[in-house]
Amino acid sequence: MNNCFAEFLGTLILILFGNGVVANVLLQKSKGQNSGWIVITFGWAMAVFVAVFAVSKYSGAHLNPAVSVCLALAGKFDWSLVPMYILCQVAGAFCGALLVWLTYRQHFAATEDAGLKLAVFSTGPAIPNRFYNLLTETIATAIFLLLVLMIVSPSNSLGSIDALPVALLVLAIGLSLGGPTGYAINPARDLGPRMAHAVLPMGNNKNSQWVYAWIPVVGPLLGAVLAAMVFKAISQ
Amino acid sequence: MNNCFAEFLGTLILILFGNGVVANVLLQKSKGQNSGWIVITFGWAMAVFVAVFAVSKYSGAHLNPAVSVCLALAGKFDWSLVPMYILCQVAGAFCGALLVWLTYRQHFAATEDAGLKLAVFSTGPAIPNRFYNLLTETIATAIFLLLVLMIVSPSNSLGSIDALPVALLVLAIGLSLGGPTGYAINPARDLGPRMAHAVLPMGNNKNSQWVYAWIPVVGPLLGAVLAAMVFKAISQ
Amino acid sequence: MNNCFAEFLGTLILILFGNGVVANVLLQKSKGQNSGWIVITFGWAMAVFVAVFAVSKYSGAHLNPAVSVCLALAGKFDWSLVPMYILCQVAGAFCGALLVWLTYRQHFAATEDAGLKLAVFSTGPAIPNRFYNLLTETIATAIFLLLVLMIVSPSNSLGSIDALPVALLVLAIGLSLGGPTGYAINPARDLGPRMAHAVLPMGNNKNSQWVYAWIPVVGPLLGAVLAAMVFKAISQ
Amino acid sequence: MNNCFAEFLGTLILILFGNGVVANVLLQKSKGQNSGWIVITFGWAMAVFVAVFAVSKYSGAHLNPAVSVCLALAGKFDWSLVPMYILCQVAGAFCGALLVWLTYRQHFAATEDAGLKLAVFSTGPAIPNRFYNLLTETIATAIFLLLVLMIVSPSNSLGSIDALPVALLVLAIGLSLGGPTGYAINPARDLGPRMAHAVLPMGNNKNSQWVYAWIPVVGPLLGAVLAAMVFKAISQ
Repeated sequence: MNNCFAEFLGTLILILFGNGVVANVLLQKSKGQNSGWIVITFGWAMAVFVAVFAVSKYSGAHLNPAVSVCLALAGKFDWSLVPMYILCQVAGAFCGALLVWLTYRQHFAATEDAGLKLAVFSTGPAIPNRFYNLLTETIATAIFLLLVLMIVSPSNSLGSIDALPVALLVLAIGLSLGGPTGYAINPARDLGPRMAHAVLPMGNNKNSQWVYAWIPVVGPLLGAVLAAMVFKAISQ
Repeated sequence: MNNCFAEFLGTLILILFGNGVVANVLLQKSKGQNSGWIVITFGWAMAVFVAVFAVSKYSGAHLNPAVSVCLALAGKFDWSLVPMYILCQVAGAFCGALLVWLTYRQHFAATEDAGLKLAVFSTGPAIPNRFYNLLTETIATAIFLLLVLMIVSPSNSLGSIDALPVALLVLAIGLSLGGPTGYAINPARDLGPRMAHAVLPMGNNKNSQWVYAWIPVVGPLLGAVLAAMVFKAISQ
Repeated sequence: MNNCFAEFLGTLILILFGNGVVANVLLQKSKGQNSGWIVITFGWAMAVFVAVFAVSKYSGAHLNPAVSVCLALAGKFDWSLVPMYILCQVAGAFCGALLVWLTYRQHFAATEDAGLKLAVFSTGPAIPNRFYNLLTETIATAIFLLLVLMIVSPSNSLGSIDALPVALLVLAIGLSLGGPTGYAINPARDLGPRMAHAVLPMGNNKNSQWVYAWIPVVGPLLGAVLAAMVFKAISQ
Repeated sequence: MNNCFAEFLGTLILILFGNGVVANVLLQKSKGQNSGWIVITFGWAMAVFVAVFAVSKYSGAHLNPAVSVCLALAGKFDWSLVPMYILCQVAGAFCGALLVWLTYRQHFAATEDAGLKLAVFSTGPAIPNRFYNLLTETIATAIFLLLVLMIVSPSNSLGSIDALPVALLVLAIGLSLGGPTGYAINPARDLGPRMAHAVLPMGNNKNSQWVYAWIPVVGPLLGAVLAAMVFKAISQ
């Protein structure tokens, strides 16, 4: 498996599980309906866990343009690979969202609320405000990426368990910093599924909220710059 | 312990804990009644954890006909062992379900709703539809088995913790893809307990819903074929 | 630290955390009031985790007369040590319960319901029935101890993480088999705190329910015999 | 990174995540609003996990004056470093709280209840009583620190997973002993954010409850003395 395909497949898996848990909690008649924030955050954490262990040895399992950019800024990843990585991540996220739609097909049909249907795919703010929503995404991504840069690898391979620390880090981000904007912290995670939402049949009142779409792209990228700067400063 | 008995015992343990957690959440007066999807999904994940660490060194801990078939298709397991493995898995699941019935005997008696009593044993669709229910089981099992094939073993034994990645994978499946059909992803997990339900006294209105029973058998087997094909394609 | 004191201290810690989580969930005005079965079961699992890592190198961290008896029956522990171990376990459980009472002193005072106050200390049946309550405790303890006997130790020490598999096993037991009787699975866990309940001031209508007390003693011991027999049979 | 800056940064991270999860659960319109004690306790546990793996190799990751004092009393840490460590911890906690305020800025504005806003920052008693609140904090911290002193390090580095046992220990403390006072168990965790609360604009009826502030300082320090004494006694 080459590194580009690995990024595609890994991000597809990430979004299949990540959007999947939101579908399970939000859509009508789903068995996990209204099971709450603990289910959402564990679902995303386990999504990271399985996606990372699946492809980390092939591509490093970035699965997130902000990770690729941050690693490149920190001198740990080749800039020349960044565009292709990002393309594969967004494409993988798009396809993962399509699979969620297939898996929860009838529950999308049973759900009236157009806002809930969009929320399965992409993030949205609890209280819309361009400045503060951007700030929250920037802070959450900066701390996420700073901690990614500080995660220590084990001296011996522990097998798939090696993927656990980053999964628990995403659990931490969701539990603690996810309240205002739903913790995109990943441009591909938001953009790919939003594109899927835009092309899929979604019934009445469909609105992919493109007006918000730049925030979970720009915020995480600002966070990447910030994290790389802080990491360089504290590593000296 | 020979490998057949290990499969029998491991699947018995899997179903004792797996059906057990559903009994705890669904049956009248149980101390865990209505404790929700997080309890169901952690219960099944821990069921996998303990069943796998108990018997993995004896049989590889398939505990699931779809796993045996998928591994055989992928060239990692001997086809000649598949029929006996499947037989032992279904028998183990049947006996595990009997033990759940004994453990929760009075709570079955206290529960009026025949549908809840069946749900302790076997899966059922949130929205019945042959095509989409089959599709959901196929997708969920395919991704489950693809990830099983991609799980890396540690270079040093971590003891029982070696069983944790597959348990967390099943946690992920349940949280994210379990909403529409209750994630059988395992023909024995559904068929064995359904047979137990059919033979046990269940009070009024007993209906083992055999009309649905083929879906959690055929879906996971289709998923096994799909996973083996994808794995072969991406491993080249 | 000698092995007897280690059993005393370990069981004290187990009960401080185990009874503590029940106090947190059941008592009036506590910050975790009504937080449900997931909190109860994780609380007991983490109680096992910390108690086991604290004393396992000194005494093997039985913390449970049924474990000591089962290991002796299986030929893995010296019968001559069993009586002293059990004494230390019950004494530790008694003292752990006293500490919970001190920690939640005001919340006991604020709680009217005498049944809830007893439930902090000792287990009770959801549906009282001597035969089935005993059966449930016997089955739950037998599978618990069989799995304890089958837990594989890592080839390299993982430090405190070595205590995680048994903690997750107790999580599994609670989630799946705890519904009917509250999973004592440990005579000391029930008897020590019940003795503490009997001697502590508990306000009106105090009733330590000694009529039930033999079940979480006899059931786990029957389970120990069963587990040792099955383990011997399947190990040949 | 020198050890003082590491303590500053680690405590900042601890409080960003720790106060963050409380903000998510308590503040108006937050996506995790009312998601309960399981979210609070997992949030703090994951806060410890990420803070410890980020800085443990630079400073030992005390992140808590009671830890520094207890280790010094136990002869495992140099007294001369204690004052600077404590200063850095309180400063880090203060800055972490500021970041939480920025991240949840709009949700603070949307929340009327002044008590909930303070609760994001600092602990408070469920039932106010100087003696018993102090006792609870002392007991909880003493057992916390005794177990910290007893945690065994792995013989091989497991990478960031090395930080998991102490995170699970804090999960245990929260689940089981957090009910009466909200488990400060750390003077810096309470004092730093209370200072942040005092200087930040908080709308009507702001009251930083300084009358309670000494309890989460003195209780944990008493617990440190107790833990060091018990540890010395049992280690002989």
